[in-house]
Amino acid sequence: MSKFKEKSLDLHKANLGKLDIIPNVRLKTREDLSLAYTPGVSYPCLEIQKNKEKAYEYTIKGKTVAIITDGSAVLGLGNIGPEASLPVMEGKSALLYSFSGIQAIPLALATQEPEEIIKTAKLISPNYSAIMLEDISAPNCVEIEKRLQKELDIPIFHDDQHGTAIVVSAALLNALKVVKKDIKSIKVVVSGLGAAGSAIIKLLTKLGVKEIYGYDILGIVNNKKYHKYNSVVKNLIDNNYLLLAKDEKNLTDLIKNKDVFIGVSAKNILTSEMVKGMKENSIIFAMANPDPEIKPELAKKAGAKIVGTGRSDYPNQINNVLVFPGLMKAVIENRIKTITDEIKIITAKAIAKLVKDEELSEDFILPDIFDKRVVKSIVNAIKKKA
Amino acid sequence: MSKFKEKSLDLHKANLGKLDIIPNVRLKTREDLSLAYTPGVSYPCLEIQKNKEKAYEYTIKGKTVAIITDGSAVLGLGNIGPEASLPVMEGKSALLYSFSGIQAIPLALATQEPEEIIKTAKLISPNYSAIMLEDISAPNCVEIEKRLQKELDIPIFHDDQHGTAIVVSAALLNALKVVKKDIKSIKVVVSGLGAAGSAIIKLLTKLGVKEIYGYDILGIVNNKKYHKYNSVVKNLIDNNYLLLAKDEKNLTDLIKNKDVFIGVSAKNILTSEMVKGMKENSIIFAMANPDPEIKPELAKKAGAKIVGTGRSDYPNQINNVLVFPGLMKAVIENRIKTITDEIKIITAKAIAKLVKDEELSEDFILPDIFDKRVVKSIVNAIKKKA
Repeated sequence: MSKFKEKSLDLHKANLGKLDIIPNVRLKTREDLSLAYTPGVSYPCLEIQKNKEKAYEYTIKGKTVAIITDGSAVLGLGNIGPEASLPVMEGKSALLYSFSGIQAIPLALATQEPEEIIKTAKLISPNYSAIMLEDISAPNCVEIEKRLQKELDIPIFHDDQHGTAIVVSAALLNALKVVKKDIKSIKVVVSGLGAAGSAIIKLLTKLGVKEIYGYDILGIVNNKKYHKYNSVVKNLIDNNYLLLAKDEKNLTDLIKNKDVFIGVSAKNILTSEMVKGMKENSIIFAMANPDPEIKPELAKKAGAKIVGTGRSDYPNQINNVLVFPGLMKAVIENRIKTITDEIKIITAKAIAKLVKDEELSEDFILPDIFDKRVVKSIVNAIKKKA
Repeated sequence: MSKFKEKSLDLHKANLGKLDIIPNVRLKTREDLSLAYTPGVSYPCLEIQKNKEKAYEYTIKGKTVAIITDGSAVLGLGNIGPEASLPVMEGKSALLYSFSGIQAIPLALATQEPEEIIKTAKLISPNYSAIMLEDISAPNCVEIEKRLQKELDIPIFHDDQHGTAIVVSAALLNALKVVKKDIKSIKVVVSGLGAAGSAIIKLLTKLGVKEIYGYDILGIVNNKKYHKYNSVVKNLIDNNYLLLAKDEKNLTDLIKNKDVFIGVSAKNILTSEMVKGMKENSIIFAMANPDPEIKPELAKKAGAKIVGTGRSDYPNQINNVLVFPGLMKAVIENRIKTITDEIKIITAKAIAKLVKDEELSEDFILPDIFDKRVVKSIVNAIKKKA
């Protein structure tokens, strides 16, 4: 066993997982018991019975998020089921708390049926002030999120979609400043049209991007393949979020003269040849994990001006952890019921503006993930709006 | 507002509820992140994917109980719904941890349909090593527990039923020692035939009691009312757990010449007159909360030898908190899949034997709820068996 593997397994074993659920009250005496349990506990119960909103004050609902998964699309591992996905969900909870102080409990469900996931999430919703959906495969995740947001009065957030879209937006806003291009005139290719890709395309459109082309496992998106796409891709086409390729036959054709390539797809699908065909001062976000669509050094050599990846060992790490801690803290503290596109854009801009103009460079377009100002900046920006 | 009420509300408000869900790992550096989250987290994920049982070692599943309620029968408060029941569930979790170190997360469900509760409990079960059902009204609770125990491979424990039955059994075993009566020859009346009453009747039968009569909101249980009873009471009659009254017309008639009265019903339904009609050296457990079926001083004056209640301000407090912390710890540590009648009896005897023969008296039949030996005694007794 490698030292790293051993260390990770030991860490997960030492305390049976990475979270603890422990009382913050003392229960040593009869008086303690009479306040925290019967008969004293009846007072908060009755207050909440009179007004459900009081649950936010007197119970863990006021500070707790559910992290719901079906284990169908776990990062880098695929469809590994609920039990095996738990370490990732606990990790997400631990990250959320460490960065923002917001608490979260994992809930890995023994079903991958969208209707069952929706039903379960609704039935358990009284306990939480928000629900994060996590590592649920597309297109189910899109439908599940939409339905839950419509049918529940707490915010629903699917990080794989919107966390990624927001951090990509922040990165792109700053990258465009560096290369001095106007967001309204750029041409973009997005590779990967699942949860992340579709959300990125929508949010970039809201931000003003006019021309986005798609590429996925079926190749370049054009009219002939319409019947083969799932509901998510059809929706992108129907609503003109995606433009259709015409005479282009492949990614090499499609990417010619484009300004931006955004990959949330698979390793090594982007070649030096393709990058060479892009417009001057091209921007490449190659975010496939752990191996990007193209190695940054190759992309740079082929002429890309700015390259970002999901990795911490290259410049420009584009990571959702910049987004969800601050965003969840802000929506919970302000009791925001729906995370609208406007809030997503506010969040992206709050992250982007932390890199000052004089600091901005091709190798520095986003704040460091440990930068303590990130959560504060997002919280303040959303609070101002709310 | 009374001082006590104010103190209770303040306690519940100070930290938004009585529980905290917090990481036990550090996430300050990139190395911390790489172990607890990506890429290191993939190792425990893959171990669990190969063998689901490993979730008990690498995740919170190994130490976490779900406390599931529908808020339909909350102690002393009735059907107050999921949100309002949360303070009680959090209190139960806090008690469990304080007494045994076992962690629990409340889950108050937005449904009171048994099929929906069963379905939800099954879908969330991958996250937990056991499920406690709490404050769910009868007869639903009985059916829900039975079905879940059959369909899941983790232990299901409904404290209102079995916690109460076990602690009453412990109390009765010791009370019979004091009055020197043989369990096989006593005649018992149980008042209240809901969750607690039905479980008490069944467990006392397993312990050797031969004659138990029932009384509830419809009066004394006899043949003429058969069609009016719910499935739980019918089941008690059909399987001869309950004997049917014949010529008796009311509780005064029924209780005549009986040895034991066990009340899990309503305040003041037992009168001095009735107690006077009981057999010599009678035993009365009047456990209605907060006001017992008869005031202990009245029962004593009318001739009862031993009186127990649920209250801490009288001798012989008969409280479930003597049971569930040790029992849950024992079944989790020994990976017991079903809490059988045998385990319940072992638990009752482990509690009873903590009061030594020379300490036993009419005012001391059970250990104090803060007695640290209780959990250990239960855990050791069950471990020996498992």
